[in-house]
Amino acid sequence: MNEIVRLDNSRRWSDVVIYSGIARWVEVAENVSADARSQITQVLQQIDATLAQVGSNNSRLLEVLIFLADLNDVPTLNELWDDWVPEGHPPIRACVQAGLAVGYRVEMVVTAAVEPN
Amino acid sequence: MNEIVRLDNSRRWSDVVIYSGIARWVEVAENVSADARSQITQVLQQIDATLAQVGSNNSRLLEVLIFLADLNDVPTLNELWDDWVPEGHPPIRACVQAGLAVGYRVEMVVTAAVEPN
Amino acid sequence: MNEIVRLDNSRRWSDVVIYSGIARWVEVAENVSADARSQITQVLQQIDATLAQVGSNNSRLLEVLIFLADLNDVPTLNELWDDWVPEGHPPIRACVQAGLAVGYRVEMVVTAAVEPN
Repeated sequence: MNEIVRLDNSRRWSDVVIYSGIARWVEVAENVSADARSQITQVLQQIDATLAQVGSNNSRLLEVLIFLADLNDVPTLNELWDDWVPEGHPPIRACVQAGLAVGYRVEMVVTAAVEPN
Repeated sequence: MNEIVRLDNSRRWSDVVIYSGIARWVEVAENVSADARSQITQVLQQIDATLAQVGSNNSRLLEVLIFLADLNDVPTLNELWDDWVPEGHPPIRACVQAGLAVGYRVEMVVTAAVEPN
Repeated sequence: MNEIVRLDNSRRWSDVVIYSGIARWVEVAENVSADARSQITQVLQQIDATLAQVGSNNSRLLEVLIFLADLNDVPTLNELWDDWVPEGHPPIRACVQAGLAVGYRVEMVVTAAVEPN
């Protein structure tokens, strides 16, 4: 049977869930006292770190669903994203404005392919 | 070929879609005249019922994407969630505020592992 | 190894990503100067076109996550949706109001089954 792998699970949630060759996780900035540019930079770096942790890499991203607290941050997001996303291997991307917890400027739901566990 | 199973499908949507070992569904409270605490309680109970219906259980949840009509309900959500989520097997969780239909306080998009069909 | 197929990828995103028998994509109207009715019509037609492009069809939709700029457009969405969705094969559907880029009235995140690649 295909087993579920949960990484860094707390009482409330898992940081990453891997099942059937796909890793899923939610990324918010570690430091939410920082501005949107810093938070987006953190989140993209954290995605790379999580990809490494699950034995994947940024050429194997499938989908990134982005919630921004303020759509005025889209130009900053795009600038940082374009520097970050691997050429020729971009995921699909949706980006909408939604209410986030106090201080949070961005939350991303990420899906990536990993080797079948 | 891997077949798609649709449960309780109406003209407009299926209550559950199962494909390739994964069940997906959207849960809102049956009784939306109730307050947020009641609606969240209902939704979590309904998730358990759907898990049973598809031959899964709450240790096999992969992802829960939560839309709240009001982020002020997060403490209530967390209190009810922590009582509900199985220790050691939590899914990933994203939670944002979004506009919901009149009366609705919460909407959850759920993904869970099932035995391959 | 299960390969990732990316269709029409630009620097920023792929129009479609196919992996492990599932295609995922984000659909917004090509013409965003049009009203909500036209944009929803466009998006539903574009979904059919993408389904054909990936060798699938509208009986194999798994999930549609809908972001509307204004929930007042739900009746229009439902009218157009009910004419469009194939009887007996509807996907699961979530629909919430979120902030979209200027002019955009609707954004849909679509998941559909395809033949394994």
